[in-house]
Amino acid sequence: MTGLTAYVGLTAVAHLREGDTVFVSGAAGAVGTAVGQVAKLLGAKRVIGSAGSAEKVALLTEKYGYDAAFNYKDGPVREQLARIAPDGIDVTFDNVGGDHLEAALDAMNDGGRLALCGAITSYNATDRSVGPDNMANIITRGLRLQGFTLGSYLHLSEEFSGRMAEWFAAGQIAYDETVVTGIEHTVEAFLAMMRGANTGKMLVAV
Amino acid sequence: MTGLTAYVGLTAVAHLREGDTVFVSGAAGAVGTAVGQVAKLLGAKRVIGSAGSAEKVALLTEKYGYDAAFNYKDGPVREQLARIAPDGIDVTFDNVGGDHLEAALDAMNDGGRLALCGAITSYNATDRSVGPDNMANIITRGLRLQGFTLGSYLHLSEEFSGRMAEWFAAGQIAYDETVVTGIEHTVEAFLAMMRGANTGKMLVAV
Repeated sequence: MTGLTAYVGLTAVAHLREGDTVFVSGAAGAVGTAVGQVAKLLGAKRVIGSAGSAEKVALLTEKYGYDAAFNYKDGPVREQLARIAPDGIDVTFDNVGGDHLEAALDAMNDGGRLALCGAITSYNATDRSVGPDNMANIITRGLRLQGFTLGSYLHLSEEFSGRMAEWFAAGQIAYDETVVTGIEHTVEAFLAMMRGANTGKMLVAV
Repeated sequence: MTGLTAYVGLTAVAHLREGDTVFVSGAAGAVGTAVGQVAKLLGAKRVIGSAGSAEKVALLTEKYGYDAAFNYKDGPVREQLARIAPDGIDVTFDNVGGDHLEAALDAMNDGGRLALCGAITSYNATDRSVGPDNMANIITRGLRLQGFTLGSYLHLSEEFSGRMAEWFAAGQIAYDETVVTGIEHTVEAFLAMMRGANTGKMLVAV
Protein backbone atom coordinates (compact mmCIF):
# COMPACT_ATOMS: atom_id res chain seq x y z
CA MET A 1 0.00 0.00 0.00
CA THR A 2 3.02 2.27 -0.27
CA GLY A 3 1.80 3.94 -3.47
CA LEU A 4 -1.53 4.76 -1.88
CA THR A 5 0.21 6.12 1.22
CA ALA A 6 2.30 8.41 -0.98
CA TYR A 7 -0.76 9.55 -2.92
CA VAL A 8 -2.90 10.18 0.16
CA GLY A 9 -0.12 12.06 1.96
CA LEU A 10 0.59 14.32 -1.00
CA THR A 11 -3.03 15.01 -1.97
CA ALA A 12 -5.54 14.66 0.86
CA VAL A 13 -3.10 15.51 3.65
CA ALA A 14 -0.54 17.97 2.25
CA HIS A 15 -2.67 19.38 -0.61
CA LEU A 16 0.24 19.42 -3.05
CA ARG A 17 -0.07 22.18 -5.64
CA GLU A 18 1.51 22.47 -9.05
CA GLY A 19 4.94 24.09 -8.75
CA ASP A 20 5.51 23.15 -5.10
CA THR A 21 8.92 22.19 -3.78
CA VAL A 22 8.64 18.96 -1.81
CA PHE A 23 10.95 17.51 0.85
CA VAL A 24 10.74 13.81 1.69
CA SER A 25 12.60 12.49 4.74
CA GLY A 26 13.66 8.85 4.74
CA ALA A 27 13.10 8.99 1.01
CA ALA A 28 14.75 5.68 0.14
CA GLY A 29 12.22 3.67 2.14
CA ALA A 30 9.26 1.92 0.59
CA VAL A 31 6.94 4.93 0.95
CA GLY A 32 9.58 7.53 0.14
CA THR A 33 10.49 6.00 -3.20
CA ALA A 34 6.84 6.17 -4.21
CA VAL A 35 6.47 9.76 -2.96
CA GLY A 36 9.16 11.05 -5.33
CA GLN A 37 7.45 9.69 -8.43
CA VAL A 38 3.92 10.59 -7.40
CA ALA A 39 4.93 14.13 -6.42
CA LYS A 40 6.46 14.77 -9.82
CA LEU A 41 3.42 13.30 -11.58
CA LEU A 42 1.19 15.60 -9.55
CA GLY A 43 3.15 18.65 -10.69
CA ALA A 44 5.80 19.27 -8.05
CA LYS A 45 8.53 21.57 -9.36
CA ARG A 46 11.30 20.05 -7.29
CA VAL A 47 11.49 16.98 -5.05
CA ILE A 48 14.27 16.68 -2.49
CA GLY A 49 15.00 13.60 -0.39
CA SER A 50 17.14 12.51 2.52
CA ALA A 51 18.58 9.02 3.03
CA GLY A 52 21.14 7.29 5.21
CA SER A 53 23.89 6.30 2.76
CA ALA A 54 25.65 7.54 -0.38
CA GLU A 55 24.22 4.56 -2.32
CA LYS A 56 20.66 5.41 -1.32
CA VAL A 57 21.21 9.07 -2.20
CA ALA A 58 22.38 8.01 -5.67
CA LEU A 59 19.34 5.73 -6.08
CA LEU A 60 17.00 8.63 -5.23
CA THR A 61 18.24 10.87 -8.02
CA GLU A 62 19.15 8.21 -10.57
CA LYS A 63 16.27 5.81 -10.15
CA TYR A 64 13.42 7.31 -8.19
CA GLY A 65 13.00 10.67 -9.85
CA TYR A 66 14.30 12.92 -7.07
CA ASP A 67 15.78 16.23 -8.23
CA ALA A 68 18.22 16.37 -5.33
CA ALA A 69 19.12 14.32 -2.27
CA PHE A 70 21.49 14.29 0.67
CA ASN A 71 22.94 11.80 3.15
CA TYR A 72 21.75 12.80 6.60
CA LYS A 73 24.85 11.21 8.11
CA ASP A 74 27.07 13.75 6.32
CA GLY A 75 26.16 16.58 8.72
CA PRO A 76 23.30 18.28 10.56
CA VAL A 77 20.05 17.84 8.62
CA ARG A 78 19.22 21.47 9.38
CA GLU A 79 22.31 22.73 7.55
CA GLN A 80 22.10 20.29 4.67
CA LEU A 81 18.42 20.98 3.99
CA ALA A 82 18.91 24.74 4.11
CA ARG A 83 21.73 24.40 1.57
CA ILE A 84 19.88 22.10 -0.82
CA ALA A 85 16.58 24.06 -0.65
CA PRO A 86 17.61 27.74 -0.72
CA ASP A 87 14.15 28.81 -1.92
CA GLY A 88 12.36 26.94 0.86
CA ILE A 89 9.97 24.01 1.01
CA ASP A 90 6.22 24.09 0.36
CA VAL A 91 5.37 20.49 1.23
CA THR A 92 7.16 18.08 3.56
CA PHE A 93 6.38 14.37 3.58
CA ASP A 94 7.98 13.25 6.84
CA ASN A 95 8.80 9.61 7.51
CA VAL A 96 11.40 10.28 10.19
CA GLY A 97 10.49 12.96 12.73
CA GLY A 98 13.15 14.24 15.15
CA ASP A 99 15.93 16.29 13.54
CA HIS A 100 14.34 15.88 10.10
CA LEU A 101 11.05 17.43 11.19
CA GLU A 102 12.93 20.19 13.01
CA ALA A 103 14.97 20.94 9.87
CA ALA A 104 11.79 20.97 7.81
CA LEU A 105 10.09 23.47 10.15
CA ASP A 106 13.07 25.79 9.64
CA ALA A 107 12.94 25.44 5.85
CA MET A 108 9.19 25.71 5.28
CA ASN A 109 7.79 28.62 3.30
CA ASP A 110 4.81 30.58 4.65
CA GLY A 111 1.65 28.52 4.38
CA GLY A 112 3.62 25.28 4.02
CA ARG A 113 2.01 21.92 4.65
CA LEU A 114 3.57 18.91 6.35
CA ALA A 115 2.23 15.37 6.06
CA LEU A 116 3.54 13.38 9.02
CA CYS A 117 3.60 9.74 8.02
CA GLY A 118 6.25 8.22 10.25
CA ALA A 119 8.50 9.00 13.18
CA ILE A 120 11.33 6.52 12.96
CA THR A 121 13.23 8.60 15.50
CA SER A 122 10.68 8.03 18.22
CA TYR A 123 10.05 4.38 17.30
CA ASN A 124 13.69 3.66 18.02
CA ALA A 125 13.97 5.81 21.11
CA THR A 126 14.03 4.17 24.51
CA ASP A 127 13.17 7.43 26.25
CA ARG A 128 10.52 9.85 25.07
CA SER A 129 12.13 11.82 22.31
CA VAL A 130 12.73 15.56 22.45
CA GLY A 131 10.52 17.56 20.11
CA PRO A 132 11.48 20.30 17.66
CA ASP A 133 12.88 23.47 19.26
CA ASN A 134 11.28 25.65 16.61
CA MET A 135 7.55 24.99 17.03
CA ALA A 136 6.96 28.76 16.98
CA ASN A 137 7.64 28.64 13.22
CA ILE A 138 4.28 26.89 12.89
CA ILE A 139 2.58 30.07 14.07
CA THR A 140 4.71 32.75 12.45
CA ARG A 141 4.71 30.99 9.07
CA GLY A 142 1.13 29.73 9.23
CA LEU A 143 2.17 26.10 8.75
CA ARG A 144 -0.11 23.09 8.87
CA LEU A 145 1.11 19.75 10.23
CA GLN A 146 -1.17 16.80 9.76
CA GLY A 147 -0.46 13.26 10.87
CA PHE A 148 -2.07 10.33 9.15
CA THR A 149 -2.27 6.59 8.94
CA LEU A 150 -3.62 4.92 5.85
CA GLY A 151 -6.60 3.33 7.59
CA SER A 152 -8.46 6.64 7.64
CA TYR A 153 -8.02 7.20 3.89
CA LEU A 154 -8.91 3.87 2.28
CA HIS A 155 -11.86 5.60 0.58
CA LEU A 156 -9.26 7.14 -1.75
CA SER A 157 -8.11 3.72 -3.05
CA GLU A 158 -10.35 3.89 -6.10
CA GLU A 159 -9.33 7.44 -7.00
CA PHE A 160 -5.70 6.40 -6.64
CA SER A 161 -6.13 3.31 -8.80
CA GLY A 162 -7.73 5.44 -11.49
CA ARG A 163 -4.88 7.94 -11.53
CA MET A 164 -2.33 5.14 -11.49
CA ALA A 165 -4.00 3.42 -14.44
CA GLU A 166 -3.87 6.69 -16.40
CA TRP A 167 -0.23 7.35 -15.59
CA PHE A 168 0.60 3.75 -16.39
CA ALA A 169 -1.21 3.82 -19.74
CA ALA A 170 0.61 7.05 -20.60
CA GLY A 171 3.95 5.37 -19.91
CA GLN A 172 4.65 7.74 -17.04
CA ILE A 173 5.34 5.13 -14.41
CA ALA A 174 8.84 3.77 -14.17
CA TYR A 175 9.05 0.27 -12.80
CA ASP A 176 11.08 -2.90 -12.59
CA GLU A 177 10.39 -6.04 -14.53
CA THR A 178 8.55 -8.21 -12.11
CA VAL A 179 6.41 -11.27 -12.66
CA VAL A 180 3.39 -11.63 -10.46
CA THR A 181 1.47 -14.88 -10.77
CA GLY A 182 -2.31 -14.77 -10.70
CA ILE A 183 -4.62 -12.09 -12.11
CA GLU A 184 -5.96 -11.59 -8.59
CA HIS A 185 -2.63 -10.04 -7.68
CA THR A 186 -2.79 -7.35 -10.34
CA VAL A 187 -3.67 -4.49 -8.03
CA GLU A 188 -1.03 -5.56 -5.58
CA ALA A 189 1.42 -5.61 -8.48
CA PHE A 190 0.37 -2.13 -9.53
CA LEU A 191 1.02 -0.90 -6.06
CA ALA A 192 4.35 -2.68 -5.83
CA MET A 193 5.41 -0.86 -8.97
CA MET A 194 5.19 2.42 -7.17
CA ARG A 195 8.35 1.44 -5.35
CA GLY A 196 9.74 0.66 -8.76
CA ALA A 197 12.39 1.79 -11.13
CA ASN A 198 13.29 2.99 -14.58
CA THR A 199 13.51 -0.22 -16.49
CA GLY A 200 11.53 -3.26 -17.44
CA LYS A 201 7.92 -4.30 -17.36
CA MET A 202 5.42 -5.48 -14.86
CA LEU A 203 4.09 -8.83 -15.99
CA VAL A 204 1.07 -10.51 -14.52
CA ALA A 205 1.03 -14.24 -15.37
CA VAL A 206 -2.55 -15.48 -15.41
CA MET B 1 -9.16 42.22 17.10
CA THR B 2 -9.30 39.58 19.80
CA GLY B 3 -12.83 38.51 18.94
CA LEU B 4 -11.90 38.00 15.31
CA THR B 5 -8.81 36.03 16.33
CA ALA B 6 -10.98 33.74 18.45
CA TYR B 7 -13.50 33.32 15.63
CA VAL B 8 -10.89 32.64 12.95
CA GLY B 9 -9.00 30.16 15.12
CA LEU B 10 -12.12 28.21 16.02
CA THR B 11 -13.72 28.19 12.56
CA ALA B 12 -11.26 28.54 9.68
CA VAL B 13 -8.29 27.00 11.50
CA ALA B 14 -9.65 24.39 13.91
CA HIS B 15 -12.96 23.68 12.14
CA LEU B 16 -14.93 23.50 15.38
CA ARG B 17 -17.91 21.16 15.14
CA GLU B 18 -21.06 21.07 17.23
CA GLY B 19 -20.48 18.94 20.32
CA ASP B 20 -16.70 19.31 20.39
CA THR B 21 -14.79 19.59 23.63
CA VAL B 22 -12.42 22.57 23.44
CA PHE B 23 -9.26 23.30 25.43
CA VAL B 24 -7.93 26.86 25.56
CA SER B 25 -4.49 27.50 27.04
CA GLY B 26 -3.79 30.91 28.52
CA ALA B 27 -7.54 31.33 28.59
CA ALA B 28 -7.64 34.45 30.77
CA GLY B 29 -5.77 36.53 28.23
CA ALA B 30 -7.47 38.89 25.79
CA VAL B 31 -7.90 36.24 23.10
CA GLY B 32 -8.69 33.39 25.48
CA THR B 33 -11.60 35.17 27.13
CA ALA B 34 -13.15 35.67 23.70
CA VAL B 35 -12.52 32.05 22.67
CA GLY B 36 -14.62 30.68 25.52
CA GLN B 37 -17.72 32.65 24.55
CA VAL B 38 -17.35 32.18 20.81
CA ALA B 39 -16.74 28.42 21.18
CA LYS B 40 -19.96 27.99 23.17
CA LEU B 41 -21.91 30.12 20.69
CA LEU B 42 -20.58 27.94 17.87
CA GLY B 43 -21.87 24.80 19.58
CA ALA B 44 -18.99 23.45 21.64
CA LYS B 45 -20.19 20.96 24.24
CA ARG B 46 -17.55 21.78 26.81
CA VAL B 47 -14.87 24.48 27.00
CA ILE B 48 -11.91 24.05 29.35
CA GLY B 49 -9.29 26.69 30.08
CA SER B 50 -5.98 27.09 31.87
CA ALA B 51 -4.76 30.22 33.61
CA GLY B 52 -2.00 31.25 35.97
CA SER B 53 -3.85 32.13 39.19
CA ALA B 54 -6.84 31.04 41.27
CA GLU B 55 -8.50 34.41 40.58
CA LYS B 56 -8.18 33.99 36.83
CA VAL B 57 -9.50 30.43 37.06
CA ALA B 58 -12.57 31.74 38.90
CA LEU B 59 -13.07 34.47 36.29
CA LEU B 60 -13.02 31.89 33.50
CA THR B 61 -15.89 29.84 34.87
CA GLU B 62 -17.86 32.65 36.52
CA LYS B 63 -17.51 35.38 33.95
CA TYR B 64 -16.22 34.09 30.65
CA GLY B 65 -18.41 31.05 30.07
CA TYR B 66 -15.85 28.31 30.61
CA ASP B 67 -17.25 24.99 31.82
CA ALA B 68 -14.08 24.12 33.70
CA ALA B 69 -10.65 25.62 34.33
CA PHE B 70 -7.43 24.91 36.18
CA ASN B 71 -4.43 26.83 37.49
CA TYR B 72 -1.36 25.59 35.62
CA LYS B 73 0.80 26.50 38.61
CA ASP B 74 -1.01 23.91 40.76
CA GLY B 75 0.80 20.97 39.13
CA PRO B 76 1.95 19.50 35.80
CA VAL B 77 -0.38 20.64 33.01
CA ARG B 78 -0.29 17.13 31.59
CA GLU B 79 -1.81 15.66 34.77
CA GLN B 80 -4.30 18.46 35.34
CA LEU B 81 -5.61 18.41 31.78
CA ALA B 82 -5.98 14.62 31.75
CA ARG B 83 -8.00 14.85 34.98
CA ILE B 84 -10.25 17.70 33.86
CA ALA B 85 -10.86 16.24 30.37
CA PRO B 86 -11.31 12.49 30.93
CA ASP B 87 -13.15 12.09 27.60
CA GLY B 88 -10.42 13.85 25.62
CA ILE B 89 -10.19 17.06 23.63
CA ASP B 90 -11.41 17.62 20.07
CA VAL B 91 -10.14 21.16 19.54
CA THR B 92 -7.25 22.96 21.21
CA PHE B 93 -6.80 26.72 20.91
CA ASP B 94 -3.21 27.16 22.07
CA ASN B 95 -1.91 30.53 23.22
CA VAL B 96 1.01 29.15 25.22
CA GLY B 97 2.95 26.32 23.57
CA GLY B 98 5.53 24.38 25.61
CA ASP B 99 4.08 22.17 28.35
CA HIS B 100 0.52 23.24 27.41
CA LEU B 101 0.88 22.07 23.81
CA GLU B 102 2.52 18.87 25.02
CA ALA B 103 -0.34 18.21 27.44
CA ALA B 104 -2.85 18.91 24.66
CA LEU B 105 -1.16 16.41 22.31
CA ASP B 106 -1.57 13.77 25.01
CA ALA B 107 -5.24 14.61 25.56
CA MET B 108 -6.39 14.97 21.94
CA ASN B 109 -8.96 12.57 20.54
CA ASP B 110 -8.38 10.91 17.16
CA GLY B 111 -8.79 13.44 14.37
CA GLY B 112 -8.39 16.37 16.76
CA ARG B 113 -7.51 19.82 15.51
CA LEU B 114 -5.17 22.33 17.13
CA ALA B 115 -5.13 26.04 16.32
CA LEU B 116 -1.75 27.43 17.36
CA CYS B 117 -2.17 31.12 18.04
CA GLY B 118 0.62 31.93 20.45
CA ALA B 119 3.67 30.47 22.08
CA ILE B 120 4.25 32.52 25.20
CA THR B 121 6.70 29.87 26.38
CA SER B 122 9.09 30.48 23.51
CA TYR B 123 8.62 34.27 23.51
CA ASN B 124 9.96 34.36 27.04
CA ALA B 125 12.70 31.82 26.56
CA THR B 126 16.27 32.98 26.23
CA ASP B 127 17.37 29.69 24.68
CA ARG B 128 15.43 27.89 21.96
CA SER B 129 12.69 26.02 23.74
CA VAL B 130 12.41 22.24 23.82
CA GLY B 131 9.50 20.90 21.79
CA PRO B 132 6.85 18.38 22.79
CA ASP B 133 8.16 14.87 23.50
CA ASN B 134 5.01 13.29 22.11
CA MET B 135 4.97 14.44 18.48
CA ALA B 136 4.27 10.83 17.44
CA ASN B 137 0.71 11.30 18.74
CA ILE B 138 0.16 13.59 15.74
CA ILE B 139 0.58 10.56 13.48
CA THR B 140 -1.09 7.82 15.48
CA ARG B 141 -4.13 9.97 16.27
CA GLY B 142 -4.30 11.71 12.90
CA LEU B 143 -4.10 15.18 14.45
CA ARG B 144 -3.87 18.45 12.58
CA LEU B 145 -1.88 21.39 13.97
CA GLN B 146 -2.23 24.67 12.21
CA GLY B 147 -0.51 27.89 13.13
CA PHE B 148 -2.01 31.23 12.22
CA THR B 149 -1.68 34.96 12.55
CA LEU B 150 -4.67 37.20 11.96
CA GLY B 151 -3.17 38.97 8.97
CA SER B 152 -3.90 35.99 6.72
CA TYR B 153 -7.57 35.86 7.70
CA LEU B 154 -8.78 39.44 7.53
CA HIS B 155 -11.14 38.40 4.70
CA LEU B 156 -13.27 36.80 7.45
CA SER B 157 -13.86 40.14 9.21
CA GLU B 158 -17.19 40.70 7.51
CA GLU B 159 -18.45 37.17 8.21
CA PHE B 160 -17.41 37.62 11.83
CA SER B 161 -19.13 40.99 12.17
CA GLY B 162 -22.31 39.45 10.79
CA ARG B 163 -22.28 36.59 13.27
CA MET B 164 -21.47 38.97 16.11
CA ALA B 165 -24.36 41.25 15.19
CA GLU B 166 -26.75 38.25 15.23
CA TRP B 167 -25.50 37.00 18.56
CA PHE B 168 -25.66 40.48 19.96
CA ALA B 169 -29.20 41.09 18.74
CA ALA B 170 -30.25 37.75 20.24
CA GLY B 171 -28.83 38.80 23.60
CA GLN B 172 -26.29 36.01 23.52
CA ILE B 173 -23.24 38.15 24.12
CA ALA B 174 -22.34 38.92 27.70
CA TYR B 175 -20.49 42.15 28.18
CA ASP B 176 -19.52 44.86 30.61
CA GLU B 177 -21.05 48.30 30.74
CA THR B 178 -18.65 50.45 28.86
CA VAL B 179 -19.05 53.84 27.31
CA VAL B 180 -17.32 54.42 24.04
CA THR B 181 -17.45 57.96 22.68
CA GLY B 182 -18.00 58.42 18.96
CA ILE B 183 -20.10 56.33 16.58
CA GLU B 184 -16.95 55.65 14.59
CA HIS B 185 -15.76 53.48 17.45
CA THR B 186 -18.77 51.17 17.39
CA VAL B 187 -17.03 48.24 15.70
CA GLU B 188 -14.08 48.58 17.99
CA ALA B 189 -16.52 48.55 20.90
CA PHE B 190 -18.19 45.42 19.54
CA LEU B 191 -14.85 43.68 19.40
CA ALA B 192 -13.87 44.88 22.85
CA MET B 193 -17.04 43.27 24.18
CA MET B 194 -15.77 39.89 23.18
CA ARG B 195 -13.37 40.13 26.08
CA GLY B 196 -16.37 41.10 28.11
CA ALA B 197 -18.51 39.88 30.89
CA ASN B 198 -21.93 38.91 32.16
CA THR B 199 -23.34 42.22 33.22
CA GLY B 200 -24.11 45.66 31.97
CA LYS B 201 -24.45 47.28 28.59
CA MET B 202 -22.23 48.57 25.89
CA LEU B 203 -23.02 52.24 25.28
CA VAL B 204 -21.82 54.19 22.34
CA ALA B 205 -22.10 57.95 22.98
CA VAL B 206 -22.53 59.78 19.69
